[in-house]
Amino acid sequence: MALYTENTLYVYNSLKGFKEVFKPTVEGRVGMYVCGPTVYSNVHLGNCRTFMSFDMMFRYFTHLGYKVRYVRNITDAGHLENDADEGEDKIAKKARLESLEPMEIVQRYTDDFHNVLRQLGCRIPSIEPTATGHIIEQIGIVQDILDKGYAYVSEGSVYFDVEKYNREHPTGSGTYGCLSGRNIDELLENTRALDGQSEKRSSRDFALWKKASPSHIMHWPSPWSEGFPGWHLECSAMSTKYLGETFDIHGGGMDLKFPHHECEIAQNQVHSHSRGARYWLHANMLTLNGRRMSKSTGNILNPAELFSGENSILKKAFAPAVVRFFVMQAHYRSVLDFSQDALEAAEKGYNRLMEALDKLPTLKTSKDGSWDVNEWRSKCYDAMNDDFNTPILIAHIFDAVTEINRIDASQSSISEESLKTLTETLEAFVYDVLGIQKVEKAGRESEVIDALVNIFIEERKAARAEKNWALSDSIRDRLSAIGITLKDGKEGTTYTIEE
Amino acid sequence: MALYTENTLYVYNSLKGFKEVFKPTVEGRVGMYVCGPTVYSNVHLGNCRTFMSFDMMFRYFTHLGYKVRYVRNITDAGHLENDADEGEDKIAKKARLESLEPMEIVQRYTDDFHNVLRQLGCRIPSIEPTATGHIIEQIGIVQDILDKGYAYVSEGSVYFDVEKYNREHPTGSGTYGCLSGRNIDELLENTRALDGQSEKRSSRDFALWKKASPSHIMHWPSPWSEGFPGWHLECSAMSTKYLGETFDIHGGGMDLKFPHHECEIAQNQVHSHSRGARYWLHANMLTLNGRRMSKSTGNILNPAELFSGENSILKKAFAPAVVRFFVMQAHYRSVLDFSQDALEAAEKGYNRLMEALDKLPTLKTSKDGSWDVNEWRSKCYDAMNDDFNTPILIAHIFDAVTEINRIDASQSSISEESLKTLTETLEAFVYDVLGIQKVEKAGRESEVIDALVNIFIEERKAARAEKNWALSDSIRDRLSAIGITLKDGKEGTTYTIEE
Repeated sequence: MALYTENTLYVYNSLKGFKEVFKPTVEGRVGMYVCGPTVYSNVHLGNCRTFMSFDMMFRYFTHLGYKVRYVRNITDAGHLENDADEGEDKIAKKARLESLEPMEIVQRYTDDFHNVLRQLGCRIPSIEPTATGHIIEQIGIVQDILDKGYAYVSEGSVYFDVEKYNREHPTGSGTYGCLSGRNIDELLENTRALDGQSEKRSSRDFALWKKASPSHIMHWPSPWSEGFPGWHLECSAMSTKYLGETFDIHGGGMDLKFPHHECEIAQNQVHSHSRGARYWLHANMLTLNGRRMSKSTGNILNPAELFSGENSILKKAFAPAVVRFFVMQAHYRSVLDFSQDALEAAEKGYNRLMEALDKLPTLKTSKDGSWDVNEWRSKCYDAMNDDFNTPILIAHIFDAVTEINRIDASQSSISEESLKTLTETLEAFVYDVLGIQKVEKAGRESEVIDALVNIFIEERKAARAEKNWALSDSIRDRLSAIGITLKDGKEGTTYTIEE
Repeated sequence: MALYTENTLYVYNSLKGFKEVFKPTVEGRVGMYVCGPTVYSNVHLGNCRTFMSFDMMFRYFTHLGYKVRYVRNITDAGHLENDADEGEDKIAKKARLESLEPMEIVQRYTDDFHNVLRQLGCRIPSIEPTATGHIIEQIGIVQDILDKGYAYVSEGSVYFDVEKYNREHPTGSGTYGCLSGRNIDELLENTRALDGQSEKRSSRDFALWKKASPSHIMHWPSPWSEGFPGWHLECSAMSTKYLGETFDIHGGGMDLKFPHHECEIAQNQVHSHSRGARYWLHANMLTLNGRRMSKSTGNILNPAELFSGENSILKKAFAPAVVRFFVMQAHYRSVLDFSQDALEAAEKGYNRLMEALDKLPTLKTSKDGSWDVNEWRSKCYDAMNDDFNTPILIAHIFDAVTEINRIDASQSSISEESLKTLTETLEAFVYDVLGIQKVEKAGRESEVIDALVNIFIEERKAARAEKNWALSDSIRDRLSAIGITLKDGKEGTTYTIEE
């Protein structure tokens, strides 16, 4: 009997604004689509959080026994610099700046994306389709929307007619604005005038197909022009192709709600009389030291810098497994703040958890254990069933850690059967569901070095207090010979290690 | 001044059957296309050898200062089970057998392919295009070949007319058979009768577009039918798109010469009056214990089994870096045999090489070194310039290893300048060109810990010699307090660190 039959999972559906029971379209199966990266630069730490969140859901669905088809796309064409269908294609622009073919840019940053996500413990999705791999399907949808009268051709480009769509799709049937809660008239007021965009009937309209300017290097033939598909279209085409017209979960970062997901819903409604996904889930943002990450203010950190410690924001490196643990400590719908202190606390917690897991095989069992492991196990599932509440799950996991340490110290006892349940449950939640990888104790080696050097520093301090300069110098010289330099300052003695 | 200006590189051109001077189409740039895998199963060890060979060429061209665009495709549709344009699509068949969507099969095995190649030290290519990502371009070429009269439509499929092509392309201008040396009439005799294939005018003809049968799940609209491109077409389409109609190098395994590359050349000739690449290079096969690898005889080994040692063919595991070294010890055009003994010998050689490289920074220099490093360096380039002769290069590298060990043992001497040249040349050839990775025996941190603990061990030894038991105990206790346990044994004092 699959675990999903005995677990009622609630998910927060952004379409409705509340949590509701998750019931898949086809029993025993989950179809899940998540908007992937536009591969024109190294993957952003905030995006990593989004992908870790949906990876955790993919893992939980799988753990529950569902057969999951998880589709996460790669945007390798068509994503313009701003939402008003203006500016250059992001990838083509980068290619021009670096004198490379656009697909060389795509290859370089897709590889970076895959490497970082692998380090962060994300499983590969079932399918990872690309926008350029589905031009034919996209042209098919544009033609269909045109045929149905919800789009118009203007100067070789095709635009979706938002006003007409909304006249015929009132609230409840996928009106444009239903997801982000925006009002179409407000949208109009908040958009700047249509300077130079006279192609569009209204600034609310969005591009389904754009005619390529002579300088645009990525373009394909179509009935309307040599051009390229609008960014929003690829997700409609690929989710429909691989998951069907109506599927279960659509995920993405909060910033994609509007306009990206609103446009997807409108396209889907016209093309297949369905919003596409039945549950729309959004992961929240990530801040750094309490502020929005931004290149211009310098408040920015990329994953490689985080893992290597080579950055000016944090004092040390953090292992990818610690970062994953840290991210899972927050609920996916809460804002998460990265900081030195918070990451250090997570590192301690991670080490404490791994130590407890290591103790499991060595614990002694007794006939009558005092701890009700089944009740604890149920609470773990309750947490996950409440819209994937990983922080509550982790709190329960730490209750188990405390109990393991008490049993290890003979302050409590556990039966053989309970220990088996405990071990299976903990390993399933920590490794399989939360995706936390076991690594050699994070930071253990630098801890040991620190402790060793501090013995020498103390010895030297004592020697200096006794005016034993010969000993004090000898300590300094011996450390220096192995590449460690001592520095005396107002706050005591510090040291650096030669690389 | 780029290195390529002072190196005359000879490559064996399969089109001509001899070595000739490599001269790129555009000065300072190299365009290189290599046929990638059909991703319907785990990557084959033989294919790994092919990709390591072309990776080595990519690296050597880069080392010589060329700006290289290296395109290696992923075949994710259109590769049928046999060369007679019959049978199922390999990926679709696997999808049917495993009850998965074809693109799930593609995703799984593309990921395996990337992981194995990364472990084997292969750099990512500049572009890795897919067949499904270039359906529009392939349809364009089919139309062009039809328009030019070298193909015909039959029952919704389009076939290339080999006989007509050869009438108008006599020897010297890309006749069909020019690469493999096969005679078109022999080809006909050796092919079985056209049972059930009455669509084709001749069994020599090959498919440019195949109409999909109702059960075929991967298909796209075209002017001729809902169908899919012929396998040979994708390489013509993608090499032309990313490298131009005439480019430098086309590579692949020996088994692709016929019919795959013959068909590519014929398509290219009609479409763009060019054979495509000017130099066609082919990597030879790999055998296992002297016999052809084959699933049916059980004489088979996949890369994961080779790296883990979990197989019945070999007695132990071999690190990917050792496998890479082993492959580079053979010339890419020679048959290479995998066996326990040969791999063990390679492992010894690899370790000897790495130890010598480690000694380089510690070697003492003297004013008048006896060894002519520049002459040795020239020989290394001569080897690579002779059609990438890596076994000869490695022989020269081991001459240097011998010399390094002699200098280390004060049996020979080297000047400072020569040592600099030697270090730069060795590191460039071993790491950059051959792509042999250094496996860290231990990181810098454990080195530092080791050096620190050894100071304490020495101090304690001195204290014990002076019978200062109080100091000796205090040292042991202080280390113990930070989790380091000293153990006195016959061979001196060792230590363990608590995890």
